[in-house]
Amino acid sequence: MTTTAHTQQPPVLKVGLLGAGTVGSQVAHVLLTRADELALRTGVQLQLSGIAVRDTAAPRDVALPAELLTTDADAVIDGADVVVELTGGIDPTRARVLRALNAGKSVITGNKALLAEHGRELQDAAAATGAQLSYEAAVAGAIPIVRPMRDSLAGDRVERFLGIMNGTTNFVLDQMDTTGAAFDAALAEAQELGYAEADPTADVAGHDAAAKTAVLASLAFHSSYTIDDVHCEGIRSVTAEDMAAAREAGYVIKLLSVGERCADGVNLRVGPVMIPREHVLGGVRGAYNAVFVTAAAAGSLMFYGQGAGGEPTASAVLGDLVSAARAIALGAQGIPLADYAALPAVSMDEVSTKLAVTLAVTDRLGVLAQLAQVFADHGVSISTMQQSEDPRTTGTSMLRLVTHTGRHADLMATVEALRGLPVVRDVVSVTPVETGE
Amino acid sequence: MTTTAHTQQPPVLKVGLLGAGTVGSQVAHVLLTRADELALRTGVQLQLSGIAVRDTAAPRDVALPAELLTTDADAVIDGADVVVELTGGIDPTRARVLRALNAGKSVITGNKALLAEHGRELQDAAAATGAQLSYEAAVAGAIPIVRPMRDSLAGDRVERFLGIMNGTTNFVLDQMDTTGAAFDAALAEAQELGYAEADPTADVAGHDAAAKTAVLASLAFHSSYTIDDVHCEGIRSVTAEDMAAAREAGYVIKLLSVGERCADGVNLRVGPVMIPREHVLGGVRGAYNAVFVTAAAAGSLMFYGQGAGGEPTASAVLGDLVSAARAIALGAQGIPLADYAALPAVSMDEVSTKLAVTLAVTDRLGVLAQLAQVFADHGVSISTMQQSEDPRTTGTSMLRLVTHTGRHADLMATVEALRGLPVVRDVVSVTPVETGE
Repeated sequence: MTTTAHTQQPPVLKVGLLGAGTVGSQVAHVLLTRADELALRTGVQLQLSGIAVRDTAAPRDVALPAELLTTDADAVIDGADVVVELTGGIDPTRARVLRALNAGKSVITGNKALLAEHGRELQDAAAATGAQLSYEAAVAGAIPIVRPMRDSLAGDRVERFLGIMNGTTNFVLDQMDTTGAAFDAALAEAQELGYAEADPTADVAGHDAAAKTAVLASLAFHSSYTIDDVHCEGIRSVTAEDMAAAREAGYVIKLLSVGERCADGVNLRVGPVMIPREHVLGGVRGAYNAVFVTAAAAGSLMFYGQGAGGEPTASAVLGDLVSAARAIALGAQGIPLADYAALPAVSMDEVSTKLAVTLAVTDRLGVLAQLAQVFADHGVSISTMQQSEDPRTTGTSMLRLVTHTGRHADLMATVEALRGLPVVRDVVSVTPVETGE
Repeated sequence: MTTTAHTQQPPVLKVGLLGAGTVGSQVAHVLLTRADELALRTGVQLQLSGIAVRDTAAPRDVALPAELLTTDADAVIDGADVVVELTGGIDPTRARVLRALNAGKSVITGNKALLAEHGRELQDAAAATGAQLSYEAAVAGAIPIVRPMRDSLAGDRVERFLGIMNGTTNFVLDQMDTTGAAFDAALAEAQELGYAEADPTADVAGHDAAAKTAVLASLAFHSSYTIDDVHCEGIRSVTAEDMAAAREAGYVIKLLSVGERCADGVNLRVGPVMIPREHVLGGVRGAYNAVFVTAAAAGSLMFYGQGAGGEPTASAVLGDLVSAARAIALGAQGIPLADYAALPAVSMDEVSTKLAVTLAVTDRLGVLAQLAQVFADHGVSISTMQQSEDPRTTGTSMLRLVTHTGRHADLMATVEALRGLPVVRDVVSVTPVETGE
C-alpha cells in the first residue's frame, strides 16, 4: 500500500469476505460490479480476493465467481488486506476475527452477538496492532448510529439512549396496535411476511435487542458491557388488552432498549415500555428501527431507518469498508476505543421508573382505600387511576394505575404487596412508562 | 506531535479559536473545563492557545481568560495546530480559513455561508496540504448528518434528501399549523421567544436553508454546488388558509430542502411544501430539524435533532474537533473530498413534482369543464379536486386541486394558463406536494 489517494493507478486493497449469505452476497455483488466508483471514493481499488463459505456449491441470492469461493476461512484472511466478517455466531468466528486483527488487518463485522460477548477482547486486539474494528451493521442495520455515537458525539456527554432496535418485534407490536390482533396472530403474520424467523425466540425474547444494547452502550458510555449486563424482557406477555389500554391513554407499547446514566453507573435494559404516541419514537412503524439519544449539549437526537435486510445491512458494511479503505490509504491507524469511564452496569432496583399497572379487583366498597394504603406504605404515589368493569367476570373491576416516578425496587415491591391483597384477584399487567423527556 | 495515542503524557494539540459568540464561548468553556476527559477520548491534550475576537473587552456568555483573547486572528491561526472558525461571514473569514489550510492546519467551521460559496476552493486547499476541513455544525446544528453522509453512506448511492434544516421557519410554520395563527403573528411570537432574529430575512426567505442545501448536496452527490444552484422560495406567502386546507387534507406545510437526482443531474430547491402528516418528517415540531435521506441500498433514513443553539452547535463543533485531534494523533491526513461525480444542477423545469393549487373561480355552470380543458391541453392530470364556497365573496367558489406528478414546467404553465381564464378570479396559492415515498 502506498499512502496517497491521488496516484493515477490507485493502489489495490484486497478484501477477504467471510460468509456469503443475504448480506455477504450483496456486499460481494457491489464490490464486483461497482469497483471503479468505489475507487473514486476511497482512492484505492477494492479487490475482492476471496470468499469463505461453508459449502461452495450452495445456491446463493447473487451469482459469485467460483474461483473466489473456498471453505478455507484462514486462507481468505491471510490473503486479504482487510476482512469483512458476515458469518455470525461466536465460534469459530471469534478466532478468525482475532487472527485478522492480530495480523494488523482491519475487520468490518455485523456480528452483534460476538461483540456483545467479546467486544473488549476484540477492541484490545485491534488497538494492539493499530487495526480498525468497525461494526456499523451490528446495531440498527442501515442506520448510521455507531459512527455518530463514536465520532460526532465524542465531544459531548451521552445521558441516555432509547432504541427500537429490533424490527421483528416492532412489526409485531405495530400490527397489534393498528389491527387489535393478539400477539400470536401478529407474530404469525410477521412470519408469513418474512419479518420473523420460524424460530422467533432471539427476537421475541429480546436477546437480539439486548446484544445491540450492550454494543451501543459500550460506545455511548465509554465502558465495556456484555449482554449479561442488560436486564432483558421479551414481548410475549404483551396482550391485545394492554395495547388497547395504552392506546386509550395516548401511549403505544414498544420493545425499548434503554441505556441511561444513573447515580452509581449505567442501567441497561430491554423490555416492553409504554411511550407517548406523539413522541418521535411513537411514530416508528412497521419493521423500522430508531435510536433516540439525549446528550448534555446536543440535546435530543434521533436516528431512524431500516434495521435489517440484505441491502440496507450491506450499505452499512460498505460504509465501514470505504472508511477503512480511506484510512488505510491515508496511512491512519484505527481509533482505539478506551473504556476509560468504566461505569459499572447497575441493577434495575436503583433505577427511577414509572409503572402502568392493571389490576383485576373485587368490586366492593373500600377496595380503593386498601390499594391506596399499599402504595403509601411503599412511598409510591399514584399519578392516574381509571376504573372500569372487567368484561371477563362479574363482581370484578379492572383498575388501571400509573405511578409517579419512583425507585424501581419500591415500585415492584408495591406490585408484589398488591398481589398479596385478598381484594386483588389478578395483577393483569405491569408495564414501565417512558415519557422520553 | 508524536503519533501514538498511548503515551503516558499525551502530546499537546494547540487549538486556535476564531470567534467567541454564543457557540464559540461554549466551545472555549468545554476546552477549558473538560480538557482531561477530552484527552482520554482523543489521546491528545487539547490546549486552547488563543481566541480571536473583534473586541476583547466585550461582555460574553462565559468568562474567558483575558490572556487568551486577542484581536489578531492571524496570530491565533499561526500559533495553533488546529483552527476552529466560528466568526461567520465570508470576508475576512475566507482568507483566514485558507491561511490555516494552506499551512496544513485542520479547520473546523460552522460557516454554511462560506462553504456554500467557496466550498470547492476550501476543499482543494485542504486536499493540497492533507489538512482536514470539518463542518458538522454548518448543516442542521447538532444533528450528525455531515459525517454520516460522508462516511456511513460512502458505499451507497444517495437518491434524494428532504430536509427541515431551518429551525426558525419550522417553528413559525408549526405555530401556524397548531394555533391557526397568521404568518405575521407566528413570526412575532418566534421573535419574542428568541427563535427568530429581529431581521428574520435570511431564515424566512429560505437563504439559510439554501446554503445548507448546497453544502449537504455537495456531499450527498459527490459534486460541488453553491447557493446559486439552489432554487429558493421563502415562507412569507404561506397563509393561515393554506395551512388549514393542508391540515384538512392530511398534510402539513414545511419549508423543505430538497436535493434529488433527476435525469440530467441533480435538482436542488428550498420552499414551502405540503407533506403527509403521518410521514416521519411531518412529526418534526417546533424548532427541531430533520433530514430524511433515501439511498439505493440503505433505503429510508432520518436524522433528527436540534438545528441551532449555542450548546447543541458546540457539541457538533467539539465532535469535529475530537475527530480531527484523533486523526492528527494517529498520523492520518484528512479525507480529500473529490467531486468526481460532477452532476450538474438542473433547473426546476425538468423536475417531476405535483402541485396543490387553490383557485377562486366564478361560481357558474361549465367552469369545471373549462378548467379541466386547460389541464388536458398541458398534459397534466388532476389527482383530487374539492370545491367549496369562498367565504370572502358571493358568486365565487374556492377550488382546491392536486395534480398528478408531472414536469414542473408543464405544471407551472398550466397554472399560468388558468390565471388567464376569465372565470378564474384569483390563483390563491400554489404549493408543491411531496409524498416522501
